[in-house]
Amino acid sequence: MTVRHETITVETRRREETIDITPRVKAAVTRAKVRDGIVAVSVAHTTAAVFVNENADPDVQYAHAEGNGPAHIKAVLVGNSVTLTIRNGAIELGTWQGLYFAELDGPRERTATITVIGD
Amino acid sequence: MTVRHETITVETRRREETIDITPRVKAAVTRAKVRDGIVAVSVAHTTAAVFVNENADPDVQYAHAEGNGPAHIKAVLVGNSVTLTIRNGAIELGTWQGLYFAELDGPRERTATITVIGD
Amino acid sequence: MTVRHETITVETRRREETIDITPRVKAAVTRAKVRDGIVAVSVAHTTAAVFVNENADPDVQYAHAEGNGPAHIKAVLVGNSVTLTIRNGAIELGTWQGLYFAELDGPRERTATITVIGD
Repeated sequence: MTVRHETITVETRRREETIDITPRVKAAVTRAKVRDGIVAVSVAHTTAAVFVNENADPDVQYAHAEGNGPAHIKAVLVGNSVTLTIRNGAIELGTWQGLYFAELDGPRERTATITVIGD
Repeated sequence: MTVRHETITVETRRREETIDITPRVKAAVTRAKVRDGIVAVSVAHTTAAVFVNENADPDVQYAHAEGNGPAHIKAVLVGNSVTLTIRNGAIELGTWQGLYFAELDGPRERTATITVIGD
Repeated sequence: MTVRHETITVETRRREETIDITPRVKAAVTRAKVRDGIVAVSVAHTTAAVFVNENADPDVQYAHAEGNGPAHIKAVLVGNSVTLTIRNGAIELGTWQGLYFAELDGPRERTATITVIGD
């Protein structure tokens, strides 16, 4: 069994922003050479989050960050980690799905950790 | 260590609906013959979700889908994957807990992926 | 590969309350002697949840439990499990991050399960 970590840096430019990190997570999975397993992506920040959803429509991405609740609450509701299946060497994502980093109190330099575990 | 995937099909019949997939996930865990580990259940859709909660009261299940936000936002808030413990060959679920598939923009034919990892 | 479970008991004293379980989860990871892997923390209750966020400001912790929605809905939105990376024998948590148990319908005696998987 393999366990492999990578930390990526995400440079945000606005107070609230979502950034597509799908290509970087896919690349980390490829480098881990794991055919079957899972990948966990997490953020070590209290005002940032990660989520899986549509990559075609920016409005959809931003809507979750609207309103007047504080960034911490948004981070709790969106969540700070996602776990996805790796099958035949690829992340199991739907046609319209992407993996997004949500900045909720930027701009800042942020990091996300990608952990791949499997065979 | 074993890594085993199964994909199940979920046929939804309404615009918003929750469907109990607990028996099917339990059966997948039994087939994987894993005594100790974890099981990750995820959906590869941007307007569907999975969650763990009560299976006794349908009203509870539907309430999360009320309101006027779009299905994408609901999917982000509810989440597209859950991770549960497998202990002594069984999923660690509370007496009142079940695993539910949430349709947020149906009816459609949907799928969910079950990945078991452990010994 | 190691898979190790621990169940901890959480005694809540109020109807809505968050309890810092970070030290207990860290201790469980140390006892598991896993250097690289993941840890999944989950609750087997339908009106309790776990989340990762700030440990410095109690107001932040309680805010997510405000409003008039029922405890079940809050539990679904906050989520019943979190998955974190274990790297070099330690849980990868940010400076301001802690792991919290959220009581949403207490007071009660609750449990949480910690599963460590890795090498």
